[in-house]
Amino acid sequence: MGPLGRLLLSLLLLSWDGKLFQVGGVRSVTLPESLLFVSTLDGSLHAVSKQTGDIKWTLREDPIIQVPVYLTEPSFLPDPNDGSLYILGGKHKEGLMKLPFTIPELVQSAPCRSSDGILYTGKKQDVWFVVDPETGEKQTSLTTSSSESICPNTPLLYIGRTEYMVTMFDTNRRELRWNATYNDYSAPPYDEKQDYKMAHLVSSGDGLVVTVDRESGDVLWSQNYGSPVVGVYLYSGDSLRHAPHLTLAIETLRFLTFSSANGQAEAHSSLKWSYQFVKEQASQKTQLV
Amino acid sequence: MGPLGRLLLSLLLLSWDGKLFQVGGVRSVTLPESLLFVSTLDGSLHAVSKQTGDIKWTLREDPIIQVPVYLTEPSFLPDPNDGSLYILGGKHKEGLMKLPFTIPELVQSAPCRSSDGILYTGKKQDVWFVVDPETGEKQTSLTTSSSESICPNTPLLYIGRTEYMVTMFDTNRRELRWNATYNDYSAPPYDEKQDYKMAHLVSSGDGLVVTVDRESGDVLWSQNYGSPVVGVYLYSGDSLRHAPHLTLAIETLRFLTFSSANGQAEAHSSLKWSYQFVKEQASQKTQLV
Repeated sequence: MGPLGRLLLSLLLLSWDGKLFQVGGVRSVTLPESLLFVSTLDGSLHAVSKQTGDIKWTLREDPIIQVPVYLTEPSFLPDPNDGSLYILGGKHKEGLMKLPFTIPELVQSAPCRSSDGILYTGKKQDVWFVVDPETGEKQTSLTTSSSESICPNTPLLYIGRTEYMVTMFDTNRRELRWNATYNDYSAPPYDEKQDYKMAHLVSSGDGLVVTVDRESGDVLWSQNYGSPVVGVYLYSGDSLRHAPHLTLAIETLRFLTFSSANGQAEAHSSLKWSYQFVKEQASQKTQLV
Repeated sequence: MGPLGRLLLSLLLLSWDGKLFQVGGVRSVTLPESLLFVSTLDGSLHAVSKQTGDIKWTLREDPIIQVPVYLTEPSFLPDPNDGSLYILGGKHKEGLMKLPFTIPELVQSAPCRSSDGILYTGKKQDVWFVVDPETGEKQTSLTTSSSESICPNTPLLYIGRTEYMVTMFDTNRRELRWNATYNDYSAPPYDEKQDYKMAHLVSSGDGLVVTVDRESGDVLWSQNYGSPVVGVYLYSGDSLRHAPHLTLAIETLRFLTFSSANGQAEAHSSLKWSYQFVKEQASQKTQLV
């Protein structure tokens, strides 16, 4: 292989590693397509390397879910993954029940009044974060009330996020019954045609993410982002796009990473077995719903 | 008929006239079911008598549509009746074209980005006006940020209204391209089963409303509310409900009222003929769509 061939090969390897060095340029440019975006319950959006899970930069925003700290009966429990709602302690002691609507759907239907005299009031507010993909520095935010012009000449990421607020007001007791705020990044659903090579297993109790190869089941990397992961996104076609993730109990994920860390053949086969099992469970669940 | 029979009959007549006098009570109580609610472009909601169209009271809020006063090419024109959008002066000189979405639908889809680099940002905000049905006095407003408790012991009307805001930001020219605010009262659509006896013909150019009997075509009343009417509502089952209305050119409506004012048999038959014609036109239009 001649010098040109070696140069091309090394460029190829470098770009595969998520970085493209400009020939003759000074600084490297991180392509947003080489990043994963990990949203956590505390409101952080981490831009991480697809290859290692290492954090490149972080956007810190309001927490994904904000609800009153006091608990009343019945109490409403929101799922931070998609804003779906559960009710606990209903009139007939039914236990935990999933409601037939999510917070975004409730905000869309509001203002409405239920037969038991509850007034639902909603608010949906979008914001675009205009971000330097290299440093994560927020250039500006675009909302319906502020749209200042942006300094040009830099390639920019546009990340859309929506805040949904809902309040329930009891017209009989004439007092506020419950309120919640749910934040969601704007991203089209994952497209099966994309043939995504990785599977992200996330812990329900802490910030652990174990990323495995979708075919072989090998652990590619694991990271702890300090707060439970509620969404994993790719950057594709000028916007975020959902990447599939599966939430597991913290003990299950710890066992997988512990086995993997031992580096033995048996442990790897146990991980493969577990991952296959999890995949089957997930597909069964989808069929049931 | 004895004295009790006459009392019952007179009570019946009084309640039919929209008022129910409390036996032994001091003040009369206006039932919200005896009222029509007329929303006009300037943001007023008039509570009017079903029998005469006379204004009982008025809620004054922000105008139904707020758009920039300057016109750019292409320009967007919203329809205050339902928030649908028209575009004028497109690239290929197509003339006036209806867009396949309304402002509320655009706000629901936002944040989104079109292929020509326009970022759409939306905001939807609900408010409940808590109103004394007798005087129209606003007791309080409920939003997601303010829900103070209400003084009890009075029957109250809860009127829901939603503000939709949308902005279009051009990422190529990096400036705001257009923004609009549309306000809409929360009301389920008119139910054909209700067998509504009246038809409201409203002028596209001023505040004229001509109300005719749906069967006979006779003019029941006509009123001018000072600003074009964009919605007519009933109060039924604890909430506003859409009543059907038909928007006509100002000249057509003036001709109808002028003919009717003459009080001649021929004029009445001309009005009947016109109203039948209008009904046919409207049903043809519905079939075409």
